[in-house]
Amino acid sequence: MKAFCFADGKFVPTVDATIHPTDLGLIRGYGIFDFFRTVNYQPLFLEDYLDRFINSAAKTYLPLPYSREQLRAIIRELIEKNDLKQGGIRMVLSGGVSENHFSPAQGKLFIFAEDLIFPSQEKYEKGIKLLSLEHVRPIASIKTTNYALAVWHSHIWKEQRAEDVLYHQNKYVSESSRSNFFIVKNGEIITPSENILLGITRKNIINLAPVPVHIRPLTLIEALEADEAFITSTTKILLPVTQIDEQKIGNGQPGPISMDLLDRFKKLESELQ
Amino acid sequence: MKAFCFADGKFVPTVDATIHPTDLGLIRGYGIFDFFRTVNYQPLFLEDYLDRFINSAAKTYLPLPYSREQLRAIIRELIEKNDLKQGGIRMVLSGGVSENHFSPAQGKLFIFAEDLIFPSQEKYEKGIKLLSLEHVRPIASIKTTNYALAVWHSHIWKEQRAEDVLYHQNKYVSESSRSNFFIVKNGEIITPSENILLGITRKNIINLAPVPVHIRPLTLIEALEADEAFITSTTKILLPVTQIDEQKIGNGQPGPISMDLLDRFKKLESELQ
Repeated sequence: MKAFCFADGKFVPTVDATIHPTDLGLIRGYGIFDFFRTVNYQPLFLEDYLDRFINSAAKTYLPLPYSREQLRAIIRELIEKNDLKQGGIRMVLSGGVSENHFSPAQGKLFIFAEDLIFPSQEKYEKGIKLLSLEHVRPIASIKTTNYALAVWHSHIWKEQRAEDVLYHQNKYVSESSRSNFFIVKNGEIITPSENILLGITRKNIINLAPVPVHIRPLTLIEALEADEAFITSTTKILLPVTQIDEQKIGNGQPGPISMDLLDRFKKLESELQ
Repeated sequence: MKAFCFADGKFVPTVDATIHPTDLGLIRGYGIFDFFRTVNYQPLFLEDYLDRFINSAAKTYLPLPYSREQLRAIIRELIEKNDLKQGGIRMVLSGGVSENHFSPAQGKLFIFAEDLIFPSQEKYEKGIKLLSLEHVRPIASIKTTNYALAVWHSHIWKEQRAEDVLYHQNKYVSESSRSNFFIVKNGEIITPSENILLGITRKNIINLAPVPVHIRPLTLIEALEADEAFITSTTKILLPVTQIDEQKIGNGQPGPISMDLLDRFKKLESELQ
């Protein structure tokens, strides 16, 4: 965590930020957040992230006490105060302190500046393993703080040398715990259409693809029989998936279409600076 | 909330309690809790609740920084400090501040004393309505703070004059958002065996029943065709369910076996004082 954060109306040293422990964010796990990167002091795809954050607040019945313009200004000031050339910005809106300890109330807004934790170079070179799990994230399209199952399940990832989970239900896959999922089959890209968070990196990868992209329900069997697979997220950008459970994907190596897309994203990112 | 709470090692005025907003309890909705009542200054079924809380901590990989004896002593002192003759005690253990903002860390323990909010007398007399929702709570047997879906869905309860939800998946019902579910059919009681929190009130109601109790998978169709239905929880004790969605249960009135069980529970409670 960087030195300063924005906490419920003012900039304070991050270590001094507090929230009341009866907030629904804590006692009911009810809150929303979003997370984006800064590149050369510029927030990457800021308007997309603001769109989603404002939308998440509305869909969870949490009044957001700041306008889009105010949020932009707070973020600019936070980047400056922390000299955040390359880093992460986390916006969190809690459920608030509720009289009946259940109904959404007036939440508190926090914005943190963070060091980024990128996956190791080895993961990009060798690809990663996902563990399949039968589950569908409820209200997956809203960016809530509801990661309890994934945090709990991550204990098993470590045991089984997996990087993350691949959720599936009724034969269809949806997403990983904090990433979108894609496959490549016969030179075309397929990514699930349902029960997913609409990732900003997902959107950019779809736009950058030089081959057809099909956005449709995708079965677990199709995923296991793919030529290539990968996940996308703000910090990972694009990580090749070379194993799901005990099944090797394709030839077990990161695929050419995947790695080309990662290059295209990096090129886009460098052009935006 | 009562005047004093126990917050991360010491008794403080409840308004002054704080937690860091980067705790996983807030940013990932990862934490556990438990809640019990005091009756004439005595914590009701305390050992059962401590069993469950200690078990929840172990199953979520969260080190509980106090022994059972220490928890008992803190609770006694908290009851005394708040003169809590009749009230509620909420124990919360957060996921802690985690370096990677994801893996379980060293949580903070909070214990709050609260006023109780009982359902109105009318709800006991007329029964309540539940709204069915296709969902199964992940890791339902652990008392996590993961209520994001229920809090979000509660917006619809209000619109449809429902008291709560009835989760079902693949034809089987499991539980309500914070209560266990029972039906009565042909003079016998049935309650779901799978994907549920093992409620302490549920256990007592099962033990008090003067008729056979079957603990087994229960279908939504069986629930809709029941003679009687009810939910149990620490604060509600036993609330008759007289409607599920637009379907009247039995004759649409609280049933005799349900209301007899509520009387038996109240008698047990008064004997324990």
